[in-house]
Amino acid sequence: MADLKDDERLDYLLAENLRIIQSPTVFSFSLDAVLLSRFVYVPIQKGNLIDLCSGNGVIPLFLSKRTKGRITGVEIQERLYDMAVRSIAYNGLESRLEMIHGDLKDMPSRLGYGKFDVVTCNPPYFKTPPASEINENEHFAIARHEILCTLEDTIRVSAALAKAGGKVAFVHRPERLNDMIELMRKYRLEPKRLKFVYPKEGKEANTMLVEAIKDGQPGLKILPPLIVYDGNNEYTPEVREILYGRN
Amino acid sequence: MADLKDDERLDYLLAENLRIIQSPTVFSFSLDAVLLSRFVYVPIQKGNLIDLCSGNGVIPLFLSKRTKGRITGVEIQERLYDMAVRSIAYNGLESRLEMIHGDLKDMPSRLGYGKFDVVTCNPPYFKTPPASEINENEHFAIARHEILCTLEDTIRVSAALAKAGGKVAFVHRPERLNDMIELMRKYRLEPKRLKFVYPKEGKEANTMLVEAIKDGQPGLKILPPLIVYDGNNEYTPEVREILYGRN
Repeated sequence: MADLKDDERLDYLLAENLRIIQSPTVFSFSLDAVLLSRFVYVPIQKGNLIDLCSGNGVIPLFLSKRTKGRITGVEIQERLYDMAVRSIAYNGLESRLEMIHGDLKDMPSRLGYGKFDVVTCNPPYFKTPPASEINENEHFAIARHEILCTLEDTIRVSAALAKAGGKVAFVHRPERLNDMIELMRKYRLEPKRLKFVYPKEGKEANTMLVEAIKDGQPGLKILPPLIVYDGNNEYTPEVREILYGRN
Repeated sequence: MADLKDDERLDYLLAENLRIIQSPTVFSFSLDAVLLSRFVYVPIQKGNLIDLCSGNGVIPLFLSKRTKGRITGVEIQERLYDMAVRSIAYNGLESRLEMIHGDLKDMPSRLGYGKFDVVTCNPPYFKTPPASEINENEHFAIARHEILCTLEDTIRVSAALAKAGGKVAFVHRPERLNDMIELMRKYRLEPKRLKFVYPKEGKEANTMLVEAIKDGQPGLKILPPLIVYDGNNEYTPEVREILYGRN
């Protein structure tokens, strides 16, 4: 049985036959996290994977269905870290999934440099606005704004954690693509695969998925676009399959 | 009457009711040039526009239908320059379109720094391979390979020619996106609009269109994707309209 607190719910991750603890007043995972979990290349049989800005652990949970490797999640907010730990236990994944409650900036010295095959990150999307405009809910504010870590922090740390040839995958808003590419190259991460997500046909992209290789050779591929909603505001078949699985 | 040489043809630019001199053994314009002519923002009533790596002048010709401003084309290959001059004359556009036979690297000192509202460029796509692998046809080799100018040359010169707030638009292969963004920022060009062209649904992009603003603020938009061929290998309606017009 799940150990639920306050207004938490035990939601389904339908496509993967997993369940996850969420709370509408603290944090719920987004489609972006699901897309990143599906986008990144992972070693199937073994390997060391780490997810930064892990929130309630949705990306480690999803990744656990794609790899038999070990997955570490890092989350700075104790409340979210605690939800992730309980979700991992509920799904019986403690032997392969571990959560760390801490600041991602401490992870290279704590876990070692160049030890990971895969680093994923769904970072806060927004530059820190004046304090008056920040979401009053501290949980949301930290998850959404670059308050405790900047984009450069997440990229620098990802590069430090990844081994040469390792993959580093981010999801972010397309408006930060220039910064993303410039910063990745600054830290010896060469962007190799890029996918844009469009809310509807004919609209501008509102999400991007980028995968870089540590010390990789230049040569970028732009993958086919993903459209989220059809003309009737229903999920497209591709997104339905990602969220709900094939059945 | 057109003044045609050797194996030159007087081809139609159907969508714009223009004609252009081409030669299969020297150079024919590509869809990429047409897409760039349509993609770039242009001032309608007046302005100074310049097209680098102009080839047989297809981009100046197309742009002449979108703006009443003055358009300069720069081409280093005399044979192509000469074709462009004759096409401009055939279409009666000498009063607004001018071709320069010369090296784009000399243009800032020759034409002045920061004088142009719009700079376009469809540069050679390929890094220079060993001499043995270069196309034996010198016209094709120069148009396709970075023999006489590198990507950095074209970006540096574009930035020098553009006025503050002016637009610089390139078409290139997506595999060079990382270099494009890094080099543009190096020369104070902020990429603002990016569009990817996919040969077919489900395939990776093979062309990208990028527009930057000289000294622009950060903030990039990813425009809706363009798909060139449908499932029957026919042009999609969007491409047919670009190539052949609405009628």
